[in-house]
Amino acid sequence: MGFLNAKGEIYKASEDVDVGPNSNEFYLQANVKAPRMAGFLVKVFAWFLELPIFGSIMLYFLKRNNLIHKLVTFAELQESPLFVPSHNYEGGKEEEKEKEMKSVEYGGSPREQVGQAFGCIEAPKYRFSRWTILDYSTAYNSKQITPLKVMNRFLSAVQQSSSPSMQMSFFINFDADDILRQATESTHRYQQGEPLSVLDGVPIAIKDEIDCMPYPTTGGTKWMHKVRRCKDDAVCVKRLRSCGAILVGKTNMHELGAGTSGINPHYGTTRNPYNIGRIAGGSSSGSAAVVAAGLCPAALGVDGGGSVRMPAALCGVVGLKPSFGRVSHSGVLPLNWTVGMVGILAGRVEDALLVYSAISGPKSSDQSKTTLPKLYFPLLKSPKPLPNIRLAKYGEWFNDCSDAIRVCCCQALAKLCDSYGWKTIEVTVPEIEVMRLAHYVTIGSECTASIARELEKLNKEELGWDARVALSVYGSFSSQEYLNAQRIRNRQLQFHKRIFSKADVIVTPTTGVTAYTIRNDTRETGELDYINGAALVRYQIAGNFLGLPAITIPVGYDRSNLPIGLQFIGKPWDESLLIHIAFAMQELCISEYKKPEVFWDLLGK
Amino acid sequence: MGFLNAKGEIYKASEDVDVGPNSNEFYLQANVKAPRMAGFLVKVFAWFLELPIFGSIMLYFLKRNNLIHKLVTFAELQESPLFVPSHNYEGGKEEEKEKEMKSVEYGGSPREQVGQAFGCIEAPKYRFSRWTILDYSTAYNSKQITPLKVMNRFLSAVQQSSSPSMQMSFFINFDADDILRQATESTHRYQQGEPLSVLDGVPIAIKDEIDCMPYPTTGGTKWMHKVRRCKDDAVCVKRLRSCGAILVGKTNMHELGAGTSGINPHYGTTRNPYNIGRIAGGSSSGSAAVVAAGLCPAALGVDGGGSVRMPAALCGVVGLKPSFGRVSHSGVLPLNWTVGMVGILAGRVEDALLVYSAISGPKSSDQSKTTLPKLYFPLLKSPKPLPNIRLAKYGEWFNDCSDAIRVCCCQALAKLCDSYGWKTIEVTVPEIEVMRLAHYVTIGSECTASIARELEKLNKEELGWDARVALSVYGSFSSQEYLNAQRIRNRQLQFHKRIFSKADVIVTPTTGVTAYTIRNDTRETGELDYINGAALVRYQIAGNFLGLPAITIPVGYDRSNLPIGLQFIGKPWDESLLIHIAFAMQELCISEYKKPEVFWDLLGK
Repeated sequence: MGFLNAKGEIYKASEDVDVGPNSNEFYLQANVKAPRMAGFLVKVFAWFLELPIFGSIMLYFLKRNNLIHKLVTFAELQESPLFVPSHNYEGGKEEEKEKEMKSVEYGGSPREQVGQAFGCIEAPKYRFSRWTILDYSTAYNSKQITPLKVMNRFLSAVQQSSSPSMQMSFFINFDADDILRQATESTHRYQQGEPLSVLDGVPIAIKDEIDCMPYPTTGGTKWMHKVRRCKDDAVCVKRLRSCGAILVGKTNMHELGAGTSGINPHYGTTRNPYNIGRIAGGSSSGSAAVVAAGLCPAALGVDGGGSVRMPAALCGVVGLKPSFGRVSHSGVLPLNWTVGMVGILAGRVEDALLVYSAISGPKSSDQSKTTLPKLYFPLLKSPKPLPNIRLAKYGEWFNDCSDAIRVCCCQALAKLCDSYGWKTIEVTVPEIEVMRLAHYVTIGSECTASIARELEKLNKEELGWDARVALSVYGSFSSQEYLNAQRIRNRQLQFHKRIFSKADVIVTPTTGVTAYTIRNDTRETGELDYINGAALVRYQIAGNFLGLPAITIPVGYDRSNLPIGLQFIGKPWDESLLIHIAFAMQELCISEYKKPEVFWDLLGK
Repeated sequence: MGFLNAKGEIYKASEDVDVGPNSNEFYLQANVKAPRMAGFLVKVFAWFLELPIFGSIMLYFLKRNNLIHKLVTFAELQESPLFVPSHNYEGGKEEEKEKEMKSVEYGGSPREQVGQAFGCIEAPKYRFSRWTILDYSTAYNSKQITPLKVMNRFLSAVQQSSSPSMQMSFFINFDADDILRQATESTHRYQQGEPLSVLDGVPIAIKDEIDCMPYPTTGGTKWMHKVRRCKDDAVCVKRLRSCGAILVGKTNMHELGAGTSGINPHYGTTRNPYNIGRIAGGSSSGSAAVVAAGLCPAALGVDGGGSVRMPAALCGVVGLKPSFGRVSHSGVLPLNWTVGMVGILAGRVEDALLVYSAISGPKSSDQSKTTLPKLYFPLLKSPKPLPNIRLAKYGEWFNDCSDAIRVCCCQALAKLCDSYGWKTIEVTVPEIEVMRLAHYVTIGSECTASIARELEKLNKEELGWDARVALSVYGSFSSQEYLNAQRIRNRQLQFHKRIFSKADVIVTPTTGVTAYTIRNDTRETGELDYINGAALVRYQIAGNFLGLPAITIPVGYDRSNLPIGLQFIGKPWDESLLIHIAFAMQELCISEYKKPEVFWDLLGK
């Protein structure tokens, strides 16, 4: 469409952009020009987009109106592309770290790694009834209860959650026989006094984007599993299984991960345990909701554009997205190659650490150990927080959220700094909206290419309507748009490197809005709500596009009792510091954590 | 254009493809469906392609008829993309190598590196009158002649080459004053007995795609230098300059490197010194021709799709393309990011080694030395060839060339093996034609994105007609096509890894045809001859798409006295072995090397 050429943004060289507090880079708010659509309107929109020539013209104007043309397609950039956000390890502070944290070389078994991490935690001081992994393990070891009994309670809870009055839509698949078989084996191990690890007998749910036997991997669709058979556990699942964890089924998700609401026309909309009229967020909706509702202390999700952290924040749980490359992607549905990462949803920071210790590592021991940096585990006991942590904060960005979130996050941050003597540093993160668009071009292009062979075999009617719209846009990008997006990736990496030379982490709210209402018109067609969508992903993109680790931790609630999350974004490979900081934050908030509307107490005390 | 969906090739997993001699993978010959065009026809074709909607439809059918749709666009692939062909160094045979070759850590100055390489060579036994670097250096040191006198001869030779009877079109720019200034300084250094290195006073020409002061960098265009100013020497040029080499101007090239003939409507068609009615090949046409004609013992080119090796073979000189990443790309016109590399054209293998030793190395010493593997320099004295070299040969591919080339290359290879007791191993390189198309999609997409900002400012009329056609096709690729091309790159890397587990190098003819005739109708519009083009690039692509080093060496002539090259493709970073083998081959051929039709003897003995 060269004949409709638009003027592109002329970017100055990244080194000439000021990332300091007094930068004259202005903060561009998300400029989404697309009205909310649901029901029949979505269908009409999808039909039009799929029309041969008219569809292309519509896509042209959609991209133009939403600034993709100006900021990406026709942009003048000086940077070369950065295709994959994998970082060389710069172990500058190794010695300092060794003193304060446990280090583990890769290559040990998952059980050994969990054993190391287990040495870093202690029983939570405040006994909130959302049980932790340690609570399960202690209960099993002291014979108060058996895994088999717990899992029977689990099954009846799931049944209850599916009742007409609740319709929580937590799971896409679960197999009672398989769960009870695992529980029986675990119970037997405890009877023998030989649990495999602290995770033995602990229920862990898996997002239906990750291969886990004996289930098909639907990716939230009605068709993916028919054209791509699940033949083995994903590496991360295999590692959890080897630690004795009970894999309790495949959680609901936004179709193909192509949305942030978790509204799924095929498997129902996952409801938020804090308010069943609200969304759980997405795309790892079910994984966040089951943890919030007490069904599992932890679950796995996949985070390609905030898909772990957003539902975690909306459901009031912890969400950890490790650095790109930290967890093997083998056995995860290949919906993209350069932005997605397995992530962890957990009730507590300690549990996120334990699961992280289990799943981190290369695909197999024959991969050179030296290609991945050491794992570090922070001590999460009687916290003696590290001194002099510097938290970078970009005021205008931080404040671009609902009033409740702003107030809550500011207070939490102030409390954190006051309590431990830490400092916030004002910075400017330039071109955040540009990064969001470049990430969208990237994930869209990669999704189209990666599932092209599956889509070929597909009858369009099997796709949900909002996924059809998403795929129409995803498939519309040129190679030049893709390459420019990678050049923007390189720019942003330079910006972030400079910010991280002055600060240890970046702090933001996790989302711009709390869980919003599930409307009735979304049931059949899903919903196109790019304005709420943009508010949800506002703080997510650096984690994915630059491969940075990030963690969200609940810090409070809005007036409707809906959870609010605070996010810390770390340097590459620096998960340990994020976990340390999140734990310090948790210590200050835990006494005020609220029980959700929908909740089960599986240890039943 | 999803509505015209074609059926794509279904590729089996790369590990299931047999690369052995009895593979049932069939050899697909290049299936180019485009008649030769020149003159008015090229103009019409360009006009049509640039038409808004009709052009897109034409491009659609062009891509379909040339199998891009079937083999790339709609292909079903299991591999993930490999974006950049940079290889980890697997220094398995370090110790063995240390014994036989000199090793040099990066980080020394270019002069030190050249000094090391200088210790590896000796005066050629057979004194062919195309003088070598050592001949120049010896003549200067022994006061037989001064650099100033040589460069005066050089200038009159260049003037002669531009006379109406010759019109060789070697250079796009050269500055007599600047050349004489350099020569005077060098002469002074020799008078003081303090030459900077063996390269001091040696004329070296630079392709007009590489920044070299005081010249603009045209890239073979009439406009690039107006929108992108050359402000400094490229790193490789700076390194040569620091060794005392005389930089004698900017050589002619195919416009934007977007063709293989070297027919340039703006600066004239570089003529082949062996037959001035024939092309020199491209895109580094002038660099190959000046070396062949005796004006320089060596020149720099850039090889994005065989652009150094093809003109080298056609002009009867040595062409060396180092591994991707071996030579800094800083200061080279950014026409792509993942396939191009600075390469060397030289009259002799020894000279290729000396220039290679000068230009190899990172941009600056602050780049970690450890990120690049060691340099090795083979001993090129009284050759004691390494034992047991295994040369992989794919018969059907090897033989897919003109009769003269086939016979000549087979004989040379047989002689090589007989003389040194080396062995050829029959292998199958699968999907060579697929790789060619995937590389085309890649270089086209990257070229479009990389010079978009320059093209924006351009009046189309300033572009040559064949470049306009090329840019129309280059700009037509979708992100899915680009990503699939990168998945094909990954497949090919797997194939080549397996071939290199059984062999040390791959041996092929360098081109499928020798230099063809420059027709009269090409002067104004250039020429579109994709059939000859495909025959020229037939053996080039792995070197670029997989970042492998490769070298071409003259091994004979066809009946019209046109040179024929034999190519060796090496493992990543293994330039030293390639140079060793090429030298051994040269030893067997050198006594039969012929003098070109057009030739100057600058040392004048």
